[in-house]
Amino acid sequence: MIKTIAFDADDTLWHNERIFISAKRKYKKLLSKYLEAEWIEERLDKAEIRNIKHFGYGVKGFTLSMIETAVELTEGGIVGAEIQEIIGIAREMLKSPIEVLAGVEETIEELSREYRLMVITKGDLFDQETKIARSGLGEFFDDVEIVSQKNQKVYEKISDRYSIEPKEFVMVGNSLKSDILPVVGIGSNAVHIPYETEWFHEKVADENLQGKAYAELENISHLPDWLNEFSR
Amino acid sequence: MIKTIAFDADDTLWHNERIFISAKRKYKKLLSKYLEAEWIEERLDKAEIRNIKHFGYGVKGFTLSMIETAVELTEGGIVGAEIQEIIGIAREMLKSPIEVLAGVEETIEELSREYRLMVITKGDLFDQETKIARSGLGEFFDDVEIVSQKNQKVYEKISDRYSIEPKEFVMVGNSLKSDILPVVGIGSNAVHIPYETEWFHEKVADENLQGKAYAELENISHLPDWLNEFSR
Repeated sequence: MIKTIAFDADDTLWHNERIFISAKRKYKKLLSKYLEAEWIEERLDKAEIRNIKHFGYGVKGFTLSMIETAVELTEGGIVGAEIQEIIGIAREMLKSPIEVLAGVEETIEELSREYRLMVITKGDLFDQETKIARSGLGEFFDDVEIVSQKNQKVYEKISDRYSIEPKEFVMVGNSLKSDILPVVGIGSNAVHIPYETEWFHEKVADENLQGKAYAELENISHLPDWLNEFSR
Repeated sequence: MIKTIAFDADDTLWHNERIFISAKRKYKKLLSKYLEAEWIEERLDKAEIRNIKHFGYGVKGFTLSMIETAVELTEGGIVGAEIQEIIGIAREMLKSPIEVLAGVEETIEELSREYRLMVITKGDLFDQETKIARSGLGEFFDDVEIVSQKNQKVYEKISDRYSIEPKEFVMVGNSLKSDILPVVGIGSNAVHIPYETEWFHEKVADENLQGKAYAELENISHLPDWLNEFSR
């Protein structure tokens, strides 16, 4: 019997990856007079991976990676006005409207009448809090946990804190690596709802999914039916 | 009878403001060929205040403010290598060793035997988690709450979450605005331990302190005695 449902936020409740894809497009255009677009993206991805241990996830860290990569790729030739444009891209990202995914609002509202709902999301504290507020979904969630990583230890800590029984909990999200595998690993339930694109940080090799028990749904609107089936 | 003691982190458990002061010094030196140092600092402070609602607190937001201010003050004349140096200042800030304040380690260790200890700190999630880990103090704390703001609502939410009675709680910190006034406001106890400098964001007008009941200690090592007195 499920009592608590926790949702990932980015690309589970609202579009997020799109904002990064659009930012990268603008960034490549800005630097196109210096270099080829493909090369720019490859170097930016590498800078992101390298910087994540210093800067963590989120728009601010991504922006510092954009600036650093621009300086490196242009061998210091980038000018102040272009740096200013990169900061402008960051501001646009932070201000961009929250586009809630299809089916989310109705489903969350319905489920909030019967279940304890949580958000468990990775990322920058400040970014995520303002996104939850701007999404208009805040009132449906009993608790919000913003964490720097999603691994078994973090899920165990949250279970302890809220006195949650693993069997009575389900995590819903788009990332196999962050939302599904560690939750299955602590003997709890997980529902995978793939997003239209998969972030390169979050890819999981097929062999790591062997024998792992979790559900997969195409859309969040199928979640109430799944919960009814599950409880039988 | 106090059961739970919560500590602010930056400039209560370890030096933090110093790292920013040193970073600003390097930054002013870097830009000194373009402008006068005083003017640089004034503009940087203004950029920080303006950006805090977009970027939140922490090193990453501060770095974006440094870069933006440099572009503005040099009217775009800043060169790539100098931008790279600013990013270098940020990396140094993030890597700089945690200098625990005098008396902290012994006091925390002693108190951890009798009380439930927490950290309640504002700032960037990623920064603060790594600082707690690097400080070597992590094991003494039962819980860590990293929040984007410290106001009455946030303290009430934390009290609820951990089933804390306001009368059985004390908050210890260096900021009147963040650690003392909101805690006194929810009918709880607070101990102010001033730091060597006060951050301009955290200043409180004298009239706002009128009639507010809180204790003031010179050093954290006086806290066990204060707790004994308080419990009589």
